[in-house]
Amino acid sequence: MSFLDYFLGSRKKTASVAKDRLKLILAHERSADTPDFLPALQEELLTVISKYMPVEKDQISVHMERRGDFEVLELNILFPEQHSPG
Amino acid sequence: MSFLDYFLGSRKKTASVAKDRLKLILAHERSADTPDFLPALQEELLTVISKYMPVEKDQISVHMERRGDFEVLELNILFPEQHSPG
Repeated sequence: MSFLDYFLGSRKKTASVAKDRLKLILAHERSADTPDFLPALQEELLTVISKYMPVEKDQISVHMERRGDFEVLELNILFPEQHSPG
Repeated sequence: MSFLDYFLGSRKKTASVAKDRLKLILAHERSADTPDFLPALQEELLTVISKYMPVEKDQISVHMERRGDFEVLELNILFPEQHSPG
């Protein structure tokens, strides 16, 4: 099982619900003199994504952690069932 | 070993080189009627990221694939050694 399978997780869907999901992982390995821009980037990413899909604040889960030299940002977004593309 | 460790990979650094790296994975699980916006999103994400760090086109590796219901976009960006924050 690859890490991608792990990342994507169980793909079970209930028969009648076909919500869209977006999962995003951003890992920044930085040297000491580089500012941590992930929190600011997160806001801008959500702004960009919301141009394509209707993002609702309460449907976003955010997780940020440090892993060695990496700052890791994980976003999970669930989109509402109805949306008109474009 | 968690999937995050796998995703982040070996963190060996040569002693003298401290380049910054950014790894991004975006996975979109979509229903049939939703347009695939990852290719367009990719361009916008790079534009946003380049506001924080100097992105050079030849230092970006892009990988896109389909995994079941997921469209998966993976970006790896290496930043030049010198950069002035801000």
